Amino acid sequence: MTGRSGAEVMAALGDIAPDFARYIFEFGYGDIYSRPGLDLRTRLLATVAGLVCLGHAEKELEVHVGSALNVGASREEVVEAIMQMALYAGFPAALNGLFVAKRVFAARDAEAGLQEGLQAR
Amino acid sequence: MTGRSGAEVMAALGDIAPDFARYIFEFGYGDIYSRPGLDLRTRLLATVAGLVCLGHAEKELEVHVGSALNVGASREEVVEAIMQMALYAGFPAALNGLFVAKRVFAARDAEAGLQEGLQAR
Amino acid sequence: MTGRSGAEVMAALGDIAPDFARYIFEFGYGDIYSRPGLDLRTRLLATVAGLVCLGHAEKELEVHVGSALNVGASREEVVEAIMQMALYAGFPAALNGLFVAKRVFAARDAEAGLQEGLQAR
Amino acid sequence: MTGRSGAEVMAALGDIAPDFARYIFEFGYGDIYSRPGLDLRTRLLATVAGLVCLGHAEKELEVHVGSALNVGASREEVVEAIMQMALYAGFPAALNGLFVAKRVFAARDAEAGLQEGLQAR
Amino acid sequence: MTGRSGAEVMAALGDIAPDFARYIFEFGYGDIYSRPGLDLRTRLLATVAGLVCLGHAEKELEVHVGSALNVGASREEVVEAIMQMALYAGFPAALNGLFVAKRVFAARDAEAGLQEGLQAR
Amino acid sequence: MTGRSGAEVMAALGDIAPDFARYIFEFGYGDIYSRPGLDLRTRLLATVAGLVCLGHAEKELEVHVGSALNVGASREEVVEAIMQMALYAGFPAALNGLFVAKRVFAARDAEAGLQEGLQAR
Repeated sequence: MTGRSGAEVMAALGDIAPDFARYIFEFGYGDIYSRPGLDLRTRLLATVAGLVCLGHAEKELEVHVGSALNVGASREEVVEAIMQMALYAGFPAALNGLFVAKRVFAARDAEAGLQEGLQAR
Repeated sequence: MTGRSGAEVMAALGDIAPDFARYIFEFGYGDIYSRPGLDLRTRLLATVAGLVCLGHAEKELEVHVGSALNVGASREEVVEAIMQMALYAGFPAALNGLFVAKRVFAARDAEAGLQEGLQAR
Repeated sequence: MTGRSGAEVMAALGDIAPDFARYIFEFGYGDIYSRPGLDLRTRLLATVAGLVCLGHAEKELEVHVGSALNVGASREEVVEAIMQMALYAGFPAALNGLFVAKRVFAARDAEAGLQEGLQAR
Repeated sequence: MTGRSGAEVMAALGDIAPDFARYIFEFGYGDIYSRPGLDLRTRLLATVAGLVCLGHAEKELEVHVGSALNVGASREEVVEAIMQMALYAGFPAALNGLFVAKRVFAARDAEAGLQEGLQAR
Repeated sequence: MTGRSGAEVMAALGDIAPDFARYIFEFGYGDIYSRPGLDLRTRLLATVAGLVCLGHAEKELEVHVGSALNVGASREEVVEAIMQMALYAGFPAALNGLFVAKRVFAARDAEAGLQEGLQAR
Repeated sequence: MTGRSGAEVMAALGDIAPDFARYIFEFGYGDIYSRPGLDLRTRLLATVAGLVCLGHAEKELEVHVGSALNVGASREEVVEAIMQMALYAGFPAALNGLFVAKRVFAARDAEAGLQEGLQAR
């Protein structure tokens, strides 16, 4: 769900806190994200909104914007979920969030362009 | 959408900051909630998640849990959106949020019971 | 500057953390508020804005709204400083702040009414 | 470790989020608090400091001040850990924390007085 | 009021959230900053204090330190407003704020030096 | 206690806010850290936990992880104090904290390796 960026974060923890990586996967992705009561797309859009409100979670926001796209949310939906948080957490938090989303979208476009280029050869 | 509790909050602002109530309705409900790119149920569940992460917005969380139910989210979905925030904002924020939801659900049950009682007479 | 409410807070600390009350007066009111580079009215309005953004400092906000009025800020200025924080910290924080100000204003009106009543006798 | 207040909190979750109570015990007390690398007294004093900095976790702070005392921290140590956070999270957060500690200490004194009275009969 | 840095931020939003830039100008600068009840210099110093307390709004703080200078606040007043927040939001938030102000002052000095150099030719 | 990094931070303040550096040393290290009621190792581990929960204090966290090691805390204890905050402040705050600790540990290893190399010559 989180793709490569999530895996990289976890690998980097390996030498100082290996159990912590395990907790995130067991508690986070095992216990919480596998629960039936809410569809994954809504779960991820809610997480994106929550991370915007936290204010200090830029790296996790980047990972979860990607995850939201991976489970079927559109770019427009991600932008709307972030923008709406201006009402509750203020403009700075929403602005920071929009710039994170912009970076994720650009990285995906660049990667898609690269793969197209490779296939065109 | 927010029902009586939202209206009461706004009325209480009337004597010290009447324009502020207008801003909330114009900017919040006029500009943001009427945007097409995200359905209202997801918007409200994302807001519930965001308010849980803020930590200091108990009254607004109460109003928006009610709004989420009003636009079609189930109680289970509200609980899942709150619970999931334990991963990102910690257990205290999620616990506070669950207790707010519990109060909203109980108030709705009490009101429903009252109306049933009235109809039974 | 803070009047009775500040004194009461400090007295309540006496039995568990007496030095802490001293720190607040020495560092806060001795070192910081006595500095020349910014007038007291602006200092207090800036503090009101800052406390609104913190989100968890309702009691201190109450004390400092009173202090702002004591050093010459008008009620309107206090309301504007709080309201403006909606842009930066979101509507819930600003709303909570406006309700604190409303309580302080009402308490002052009640006290003024009482004193008028006493003098009229 | 948390005594009665922790149990009550969990029981209250039973009807809306029963799994959540289980997560707190399994992940919190099972996975984290049972880890060997840090003694329980330091763990709890660190938690008290962390909860003071969060600002929105008054109920959990109350529970954990009690837990800190239960695992051998002195009242003075609890007060010092809270007071020190004024440097990092500001005076309002530290003041709120000191008042929570004061309430916990008073409740313990009242309970001790009650038990003494019972034994004296 | 915000000069070039504000304009750049808004332009960067154009391709993912064009309406959002409009909201900031309409709601922020149209509705809030044009209100009569508080002079612009105090409004901006209050905003600087508020952004320091938020902790996660470094870019906006940079823009608004510049705006405060643009509407007539002195560097000393900006420094005092930031420094004072150590009391309420702790030393880390105030320190971060002072370093932001230092960068803004240095950039202005560099630009002034450049223009002087150009005129001297 | 804070070593070189603390001194550098203070020196950088010299030209815009020289008194502020003095306040930090007088109030912070004079008044608070010299108090008897809590040992320095626990004080620093509590501070590390508190700074993790703040979320916006990465530079101070770096300085204080170093201070904790300087006054006798082990790397494992620092990691445990940070990791435990996932329960209270969420995974993003704890993850950010672990990466700060990782950087501090790596810098110390690099410096130790350098000194060993110098002595081996």
